[in-house]
Amino acid sequence: MSSNPTVSVFGASGYAGALAADLVQKHPNFKLKAITSRSDAGRKLNELYPHYRVAQELEEFDINRHGDVDAAIVAYPHGAAAPIVKELIEGGVKVVDLSADFRLRDQATYEEWYVPHQAPELLADAVYGLPELYRDQIKHAQLVANPGCYPTAAILALRPLATELEILDVVIDAKSGVSGAGRAATDKTHFVAVDENVSAYGVPRHRHTPEIEQELAALGSPVTITFTPHLVPLDQGELVSCYVSVAGGVGGELEGMYEDYYEDEAFVELATTPPGVRDVRDTNICRISVHRDERTGRAIVFGAIDNLWKGTASQAIQNLNLMFGFDEGAGIS
Amino acid sequence: MSSNPTVSVFGASGYAGALAADLVQKHPNFKLKAITSRSDAGRKLNELYPHYRVAQELEEFDINRHGDVDAAIVAYPHGAAAPIVKELIEGGVKVVDLSADFRLRDQATYEEWYVPHQAPELLADAVYGLPELYRDQIKHAQLVANPGCYPTAAILALRPLATELEILDVVIDAKSGVSGAGRAATDKTHFVAVDENVSAYGVPRHRHTPEIEQELAALGSPVTITFTPHLVPLDQGELVSCYVSVAGGVGGELEGMYEDYYEDEAFVELATTPPGVRDVRDTNICRISVHRDERTGRAIVFGAIDNLWKGTASQAIQNLNLMFGFDEGAGIS
Amino acid sequence: MSSNPTVSVFGASGYAGALAADLVQKHPNFKLKAITSRSDAGRKLNELYPHYRVAQELEEFDINRHGDVDAAIVAYPHGAAAPIVKELIEGGVKVVDLSADFRLRDQATYEEWYVPHQAPELLADAVYGLPELYRDQIKHAQLVANPGCYPTAAILALRPLATELEILDVVIDAKSGVSGAGRAATDKTHFVAVDENVSAYGVPRHRHTPEIEQELAALGSPVTITFTPHLVPLDQGELVSCYVSVAGGVGGELEGMYEDYYEDEAFVELATTPPGVRDVRDTNICRISVHRDERTGRAIVFGAIDNLWKGTASQAIQNLNLMFGFDEGAGIS
Amino acid sequence: MSSNPTVSVFGASGYAGALAADLVQKHPNFKLKAITSRSDAGRKLNELYPHYRVAQELEEFDINRHGDVDAAIVAYPHGAAAPIVKELIEGGVKVVDLSADFRLRDQATYEEWYVPHQAPELLADAVYGLPELYRDQIKHAQLVANPGCYPTAAILALRPLATELEILDVVIDAKSGVSGAGRAATDKTHFVAVDENVSAYGVPRHRHTPEIEQELAALGSPVTITFTPHLVPLDQGELVSCYVSVAGGVGGELEGMYEDYYEDEAFVELATTPPGVRDVRDTNICRISVHRDERTGRAIVFGAIDNLWKGTASQAIQNLNLMFGFDEGAGIS
Repeated sequence: MSSNPTVSVFGASGYAGALAADLVQKHPNFKLKAITSRSDAGRKLNELYPHYRVAQELEEFDINRHGDVDAAIVAYPHGAAAPIVKELIEGGVKVVDLSADFRLRDQATYEEWYVPHQAPELLADAVYGLPELYRDQIKHAQLVANPGCYPTAAILALRPLATELEILDVVIDAKSGVSGAGRAATDKTHFVAVDENVSAYGVPRHRHTPEIEQELAALGSPVTITFTPHLVPLDQGELVSCYVSVAGGVGGELEGMYEDYYEDEAFVELATTPPGVRDVRDTNICRISVHRDERTGRAIVFGAIDNLWKGTASQAIQNLNLMFGFDEGAGIS
Repeated sequence: MSSNPTVSVFGASGYAGALAADLVQKHPNFKLKAITSRSDAGRKLNELYPHYRVAQELEEFDINRHGDVDAAIVAYPHGAAAPIVKELIEGGVKVVDLSADFRLRDQATYEEWYVPHQAPELLADAVYGLPELYRDQIKHAQLVANPGCYPTAAILALRPLATELEILDVVIDAKSGVSGAGRAATDKTHFVAVDENVSAYGVPRHRHTPEIEQELAALGSPVTITFTPHLVPLDQGELVSCYVSVAGGVGGELEGMYEDYYEDEAFVELATTPPGVRDVRDTNICRISVHRDERTGRAIVFGAIDNLWKGTASQAIQNLNLMFGFDEGAGIS
Repeated sequence: MSSNPTVSVFGASGYAGALAADLVQKHPNFKLKAITSRSDAGRKLNELYPHYRVAQELEEFDINRHGDVDAAIVAYPHGAAAPIVKELIEGGVKVVDLSADFRLRDQATYEEWYVPHQAPELLADAVYGLPELYRDQIKHAQLVANPGCYPTAAILALRPLATELEILDVVIDAKSGVSGAGRAATDKTHFVAVDENVSAYGVPRHRHTPEIEQELAALGSPVTITFTPHLVPLDQGELVSCYVSVAGGVGGELEGMYEDYYEDEAFVELATTPPGVRDVRDTNICRISVHRDERTGRAIVFGAIDNLWKGTASQAIQNLNLMFGFDEGAGIS
Repeated sequence: MSSNPTVSVFGASGYAGALAADLVQKHPNFKLKAITSRSDAGRKLNELYPHYRVAQELEEFDINRHGDVDAAIVAYPHGAAAPIVKELIEGGVKVVDLSADFRLRDQATYEEWYVPHQAPELLADAVYGLPELYRDQIKHAQLVANPGCYPTAAILALRPLATELEILDVVIDAKSGVSGAGRAATDKTHFVAVDENVSAYGVPRHRHTPEIEQELAALGSPVTITFTPHLVPLDQGELVSCYVSVAGGVGGELEGMYEDYYEDEAFVELATTPPGVRDVRDTNICRISVHRDERTGRAIVFGAIDNLWKGTASQAIQNLNLMFGFDEGAGIS
């Protein structure tokens, strides 16, 4: 392994891929090799995103030309990602996949919520790329499934409760900026549709639901959740508001419990008042506050992230740092 | 009673009072008499709010000069409203009070959540001004307590469930535009604090909680709720997302149940997809959709209103219309 | 002529056409007959625009079915409008055309800035639909060319100067909300592209330039102007900032001069401080302030309108009111 | 001089001072010593600005305690800055002053537009801190007057024209995000006042006017300008649109002329299409495009900056880098 491993971003014309390319280019340890795009091949990335200042040209993906690279960030849609991930893995490339294709460990669950799986044989070795939970496994993984943006915030927000107590029921009401809906220009992402508006979508079955349930169960709280995202008029940022019923109700121990879990985590920040998404804009940080609703015995937990950063691209870098033995925060602090 | 009753707005320099003055001025049946303001006396209302085009001057309130009027809309802060309401009531004026002072029928509950009550003797005759629930009582009331903005949306959204089924538990996650925080310029309402942000406030004890609980109980579902509002970067508009557990879980009957309650209501609109606050901007309409979450047995109900209109000022006009025997939608359709 | 003339809106799925349909439906004197759309035929208008509450279905345009109507508002793109306008005119229908096709009296100028003209024989009888300038001609016109949004604000802002003084040079720097860019979902109208952004477009030759020049010349000031529009992150609203050099420089007479022109105009409002677009949102009003820059001898004039209202749809109603002899402000006050 | 000079920020609770403190804290060569604030002494900066993550406490300024520092960034209001700057200069501290107090070389001009000058004896040695113009002088200066945000963008946008050609007249129409209006919560900065709005302010005599004129004259084009700023609904970002008449009109040489001036400047970026403020958000870059309006012979130049970065705080760091012999882009690239 060279001291400056090469990294390519496949699918770099979307919001997450473009930011990933920018972060790789600025990274002190990695070298950006190629960037690809089906829709925008031939254009330079800084034409699409002047603020990223990545002057490299987007190419059409070709495994023969692009397979020779130390690592890849794959930013393809779910379903489309699995085949290219498979080719890369077989070629010995380390992969962080931003799609949902390798997040759900159970193939049947994936196929219930998404599409038939194109590379189920890789599921067993894929690691769920939430470093705060799976740091050691990520270090030794060849394939890391980068978590969804909502699951990242929700799982970090609920982790101490799910582990220390028994979660009986949880309602997660999430609010996301429009970059979460992707770069496609549609009736839903038109400025006039979003401005001065707020509404729910994906009701009542958003695809991030089983991903959150999988990890809560892994932490010790198997529970069927209610998860409802909303679109709000801002560009980057995501807030999850979690209403949690635990066996016996919560007492006064909540803040200490969260400190135990997170005081040594560089990218989790505890606050005593509800966090705003502005507090974490353009950072890899998840900012969390936990509150006791003494009238109902519920815990109320808020988690704020930047959906493009900790929710996607900078978390991919965090994973790559772990996979290559670099400082976990290199290039994203 | 003359055919054009006079109406004054006391406390007309805030957002709700100013809109109320505008609506009265444009009303086909009412005549705007006086508008008052402690902080802005001597200024014309259209200097503060050019878009309302009310050229009348704001005066300092004086019961001797202002008591001779057929009706009053009182837009004072809670606690400050009760004394002036009392003076007006004693003078025979019909009053719609926008504050919280007469919304809670139980004095002790009011004093637990607010301040000592200045006119508890009026509580027995005050009518809660949600026309869809108390239309007949409003018609004969001298004092109507205009509901809070969040309770308006929440109660209308939950009414069929609370009446027809037994609500066991409900989480209400609300999102409000910044006009809901009032006209005072503060660190919280500064553009730069709100823009690109979303965060919760009033956690875990927002004052609209007992008001919602009072009405759910009156409908047949006494329940301790969890209510959490959030501030979102828009000016007018409010969405409540209600997650409701009912005895036995909900079945497929939800849409029909809601139609039964609302098909004849001019200001409640049922939608099959989640409503956006843009859909009801500058209207007296509450737009509602109800969904069944079959995985958990919950009902998920969304209610969207314009917090300044149905949430406050136009609902006050709706109440005045009823109190004077006019068409319920006069001046607000 | 019946007392309730029928009006159809052809091209009602765009922002301007949809608002026009809404205004016709609410109008006390007109009756909305048909609404058409090429792209959305078969859908109800309130599916596309819930806030307009026009439940009528969009049809495919067919002159045989749709020609029998008293008046039409045509909301087609430039070039596409002329042929349908011609058919309607020949059928005796009164037409307000929202496109640019009949705004420029000189065919060659139109063809230099747009496309070959499809119905130049109608140009001689078309009236430029700015009521404040051409009220009498509009009353007797069969074909009214509704002005562009920028020209509406700019011409009203400059009219007194262009008439009373000799304008030597004018720079018009305009700012528009995103609805001015139309309903099409594109990279330019995506929320994330517009939010937190401001930039110029149409540099240096925006098509509204010759329209403004035509009318300034007609008022007595033939001048080559510089006109540059900018996109700002808001939905509705347009501000023109006009920097005007006049022969001899301006003196202290400006405010009086503007009052002379506009004190009797119901839809022009003079302000002493620079107007904001919020002041005129959802109104047919153009709000103007004029200032003397004594260091340069320039006049600085600001004009604010709602681009969808006075800039397009409500001005179309104002024109229809004149064409049918109704109160000029009916349905738009 | 140690290899890590200490820097204090006096007046660190405003937007510019807070960002300056954050940039100093992250800087590879400087060490943040103290931060002060009159209004917020005793609070930690990250309570006011969670996203800056500067945990240091704001102190009350005291020259005895705070005078022992290598350099200071002074973020006081104009008038209030001069006395503290004088104390620091006399104590041998290198100062970058963010106020207007030392920008205008002519005392009389300063006093015409601002207030009586408190330290005119320092004017002769103060250097105008626009590195692209005064790089060499800044390297040897003890007192650098950091430019105003509008002048930064305007002077950079006009520099090649002002130097190579003779500017006869220029209209500068500027648009700024709300952070430019400062942190004070007022009627003007309330979210509801700014949202969905755009309007001019400071008409017709904004205080940045003489600063721009001073530098254009220094470049060879003494000219009386018209400068009008507007407030637009975004947080950070500033665009100047400059309409320039030059002797003889402009020809086709514009782009080459700009390249000559800026191809070696790390923080000036030339674009072929009009820049948006999003393109430079959170950067020290001024992005410029120049266009020829052949109909009028004018040049149209756009310059976009982030008002808090290149417009204030990061430019202060750029100046400090020069003053201490560090890489000009250290800590701000």
